[in-house]
Amino acid sequence: MLITLTTDFGTQDAYVGLMKAVILTLAPQVRLVDLTHELAPGDVRGAAVLLDDAVDYFPPNTVHLAVVDPGVGGPRAALAVETDRFFLVGPDNGLFGPILERYPPRRLVHLTNPAFHRQPTSATFHGRDIFAPAAAHLALARPIEQLGRSVQKWQTLNLPRPQISSGGLIAHVLRVDRFGNLITNLRRQELDRWRGRRPLESLILRIGRRTLRGIRRTYSDVPRGELVAYIGSTERLEIAVHGGDAARHLAVKPDQPVMIRCSR
Amino acid sequence: MLITLTTDFGTQDAYVGLMKAVILTLAPQVRLVDLTHELAPGDVRGAAVLLDDAVDYFPPNTVHLAVVDPGVGGPRAALAVETDRFFLVGPDNGLFGPILERYPPRRLVHLTNPAFHRQPTSATFHGRDIFAPAAAHLALARPIEQLGRSVQKWQTLNLPRPQISSGGLIAHVLRVDRFGNLITNLRRQELDRWRGRRPLESLILRIGRRTLRGIRRTYSDVPRGELVAYIGSTERLEIAVHGGDAARHLAVKPDQPVMIRCSR
Amino acid sequence: MLITLTTDFGTQDAYVGLMKAVILTLAPQVRLVDLTHELAPGDVRGAAVLLDDAVDYFPPNTVHLAVVDPGVGGPRAALAVETDRFFLVGPDNGLFGPILERYPPRRLVHLTNPAFHRQPTSATFHGRDIFAPAAAHLALARPIEQLGRSVQKWQTLNLPRPQISSGGLIAHVLRVDRFGNLITNLRRQELDRWRGRRPLESLILRIGRRTLRGIRRTYSDVPRGELVAYIGSTERLEIAVHGGDAARHLAVKPDQPVMIRCSR
Repeated sequence: MLITLTTDFGTQDAYVGLMKAVILTLAPQVRLVDLTHELAPGDVRGAAVLLDDAVDYFPPNTVHLAVVDPGVGGPRAALAVETDRFFLVGPDNGLFGPILERYPPRRLVHLTNPAFHRQPTSATFHGRDIFAPAAAHLALARPIEQLGRSVQKWQTLNLPRPQISSGGLIAHVLRVDRFGNLITNLRRQELDRWRGRRPLESLILRIGRRTLRGIRRTYSDVPRGELVAYIGSTERLEIAVHGGDAARHLAVKPDQPVMIRCSR
Repeated sequence: MLITLTTDFGTQDAYVGLMKAVILTLAPQVRLVDLTHELAPGDVRGAAVLLDDAVDYFPPNTVHLAVVDPGVGGPRAALAVETDRFFLVGPDNGLFGPILERYPPRRLVHLTNPAFHRQPTSATFHGRDIFAPAAAHLALARPIEQLGRSVQKWQTLNLPRPQISSGGLIAHVLRVDRFGNLITNLRRQELDRWRGRRPLESLILRIGRRTLRGIRRTYSDVPRGELVAYIGSTERLEIAVHGGDAARHLAVKPDQPVMIRCSR
Repeated sequence: MLITLTTDFGTQDAYVGLMKAVILTLAPQVRLVDLTHELAPGDVRGAAVLLDDAVDYFPPNTVHLAVVDPGVGGPRAALAVETDRFFLVGPDNGLFGPILERYPPRRLVHLTNPAFHRQPTSATFHGRDIFAPAAAHLALARPIEQLGRSVQKWQTLNLPRPQISSGGLIAHVLRVDRFGNLITNLRRQELDRWRGRRPLESLILRIGRRTLRGIRRTYSDVPRGELVAYIGSTERLEIAVHGGDAARHLAVKPDQPVMIRCSR
């Protein structure tokens, strides 16, 4: 059984190691995969997008444990979710909003049963004391209802959505990756629905004051140092500089719009 | 069986991977958990505090391998320790001083038996050639006496200790975590012993020129942007800024004192 | 079975996690070891040297998966290599050049068989869709010929080599590690061949305008703060500052020469 970990804990402290300690104490056979621990402190939205782009690649019944939890110890609920394909465990602060649009929950619980909390339970580290044990128990196939009270609702996130305007289709930059590539909110299928039979090569993109001609297949379809648009590895429209850093090159702002129109 | 790894090697080189290679060659079934590899080069004290705060959360008989070893190849001894709960392996430079105050050793050896060293043995990377093999053999349940000569003594560290003065109780900042939270040397039980029946909410803390009223439960017990004192997840007094970075906010210095007194 | 991972993906995105997801879907029992993900974007040469210094320490039949792939989606081939000791999987861009000088390939294939590609196959993330599945299949002992077309050639790298001149032996700095230690291209055996019976302590090294007397055993053979030359843990000549950062101290440039001569 597989558990993934996604946090804003960084790797300079032992916080991630302590969550793994608790998991492996309960479920010594479980496999652990780190997605990232380098989210900016409190970046719930970054975590939500990253997770949404990751869950499709894991085997069935993987447990995704995500702890970006600026409200730890406060009124936000602790959540576990079962879907047809995987489990989610983490704070109910919108972290799972985007995923649950694509994979509606089969069962949702608040982690209210103290029998499955580590004792004593810290008020500032639910990752170790509430979420990690819940993930371990789900990996061990314990029925999710035992972990707490069933609920029907969860927090969503207000992410920008692609918009169709008279001028064309407007996407927005959601994330910047370590290469400086811009990852937008426009998925391949939405783009395909909008463009119909117009070929990808014929589209014109505008970001800030820069214009790109055509959506290409990969970086090397343009000369080094030039901007290139393509459908990225998570099936979203991306913009990069071949061999460079598009975020720095374009001085991109959060939610920066990308306007897409036909060539004529 | 579980081995944890704690080093100042960073993750840009393959040094950590090479220790794992040696461990998995000897003990292919062992589970590995990284605590951190981001300690500042040579930060023995940071490693000692981090480890002391971590060992309680791992299953019995875990082997904790720690290599922050500025004196590698010099006269410092190579150490393995057995306690009632876990094993420790690393240089004898004070790294295990704080832990061994809480968990007195059952057996201590210097890793002098070359039969358990990787050959050829590098003079600059005992982590790979001496400590990693020792950790693997302990994880395989080899008796610790076989690894070298039994000894009685180990290096301790001169960490500041909380002091009771006429003005109150003085704690000191030992570490700053990635969120900028200040982790002090004052444990809950020492605080409780000192305060007796005076409630946590009634205490006054002073750090630098700032005053905090009351020890709270968690960050969100104060408004965002304000300083908050609380008992942290490792049962030590911590000071944070709700949603911010206390170390930057307060321009904290190493061993900075925190004065705690009653409200009147 | 063991797979190592070496990339320039960093750890802020989930790219490494997605490669692991694909591997563990195909080969749930495989063990994974990260060498590094912190190579500078596109640093093929840094990856090649790091890998060359790592492969000797892993158990037989380890699969080394390396993805530093600035030409992804372009004309560069995707490669898998079998040697007497291990397997290599990654782009054919010189990444395996240095290793294959020491371990000539037994079989080489281009990963042209789409049956072993993840579907749909992204044009920008062959690490996840082509290389990770190939590594998993090799770890599962699938014959390498099934993965694609057999070939005879591979890309090499133009690394500087040590030179013998009238003035002495010239080494070059290949890499700088996280401690600021300078790792050169001069291996112990080449040095020994050149120096014959002249003792290590009698050699004089010159780097930039600085002179070092003698090749020592370890850092602490010189006072703190002083330059020291020694044969490092990967059997190469290294130069460090005891307790300091030689790269910063010397303002080292890529391929910086180190001249070695006899004391008289």
